[in-house]
Amino acid sequence: MRISLLGGTGDIAEGLVLRWSQKGHEIFIGSRSQEKAEGIAAEYIEKLKELGIEPKIHGMANADAAKHSEVIIISIPPEYAASTIEGCADSITDQIVVTPVVSMKKEGKTFLYDPPSQGSSAEEIRQVLPETAKLVSAYHNLPAKELALIHEDMDYDVVICGDDEDSKEVVKNLTEEMKNLRVLDAGPLSVSPMIEAITPLIVSLNVRLKNHFSVKFV
Amino acid sequence: MRISLLGGTGDIAEGLVLRWSQKGHEIFIGSRSQEKAEGIAAEYIEKLKELGIEPKIHGMANADAAKHSEVIIISIPPEYAASTIEGCADSITDQIVVTPVVSMKKEGKTFLYDPPSQGSSAEEIRQVLPETAKLVSAYHNLPAKELALIHEDMDYDVVICGDDEDSKEVVKNLTEEMKNLRVLDAGPLSVSPMIEAITPLIVSLNVRLKNHFSVKFV
Repeated sequence: MRISLLGGTGDIAEGLVLRWSQKGHEIFIGSRSQEKAEGIAAEYIEKLKELGIEPKIHGMANADAAKHSEVIIISIPPEYAASTIEGCADSITDQIVVTPVVSMKKEGKTFLYDPPSQGSSAEEIRQVLPETAKLVSAYHNLPAKELALIHEDMDYDVVICGDDEDSKEVVKNLTEEMKNLRVLDAGPLSVSPMIEAITPLIVSLNVRLKNHFSVKFV
Repeated sequence: MRISLLGGTGDIAEGLVLRWSQKGHEIFIGSRSQEKAEGIAAEYIEKLKELGIEPKIHGMANADAAKHSEVIIISIPPEYAASTIEGCADSITDQIVVTPVVSMKKEGKTFLYDPPSQGSSAEEIRQVLPETAKLVSAYHNLPAKELALIHEDMDYDVVICGDDEDSKEVVKNLTEEMKNLRVLDAGPLSVSPMIEAITPLIVSLNVRLKNHFSVKFV
């Protein structure tokens, strides 16, 4: 598939780009500046070539990356996510948009869920998307470091939600191409606050217990 | 230890009573009426005797059960939890109080976290407890059915939080007497909304996927 990662640096972006490239998907790295996006794309291409993989990765401005892709991953900090999407307004029509965005605040060593006034980052993003776009909430709790180690299997669950069944099926299939992730569909987009809230809980546990937890439903 | 379960029927109460009785703890079942509490206590005693265990279980009114115990488990629906504690005001001084209370609402087949205005059920309960009581938030996501099968080990995580370190240590020890539960301390009581919110997510997953999930951090 043609997949864009808006703000395609850092955190889970690297692992998703590497693993989906390995599976033959075409990747569009978006950034605020085309130059920066091209630089990031070149880095990913070099990494993959070292692994013997000939990837299809392009760097371009966010709006162009969104326009070229069937699936758009919002890999952007919570405070910029909605405004970045608004800046891509002409490029997003009926694509699948995936939000792993979580808004949290820090109190001492503890991280707390701190959703926007809309109730969740997913709902905030939904309100700036055209109605024809299909929003799926996913990937909030993937451990970035392990995701980037593409020769290692991951034994984690990815809980997703969204109001469009077909787009959740696409996200499920793309996700389960990454061994051994399992997708659990928790229902409509209204579930997103409960999925998003797991992230600050895991971060708090990781800080306290010096671990790098992800979550599994057993 | 001397442990009371206020509203000691249903859900996780049975499993906790059976498993802690097996470990020799003395249990005080509380209910609104002493008669009902005595009836429930008699049922638990009979079950345990059939299993060859001679338990120390007493049934009495909620306030009396609280007064007799070192650890008080609030096994009460969210809408009655705070008022029940207020009704036990003279009986709760410096005990450890454990809240597994979660407030949720149903929309179609989906369960959503629906905390009280205080931000979490734990915070609502804290506000009606005397300052000398030590509140620990725990046991929100224990699968009741498996908990009641006392000869089966459970491979789950119990995430707890609270502002008093010593009382969390007591709850941790009591919990880990039940094989093979693992306690993860996520920090202060302010973390409770994120722990409570996992319950409606799990219930939603269970309804959709016809499963009986609990959670593990891996």
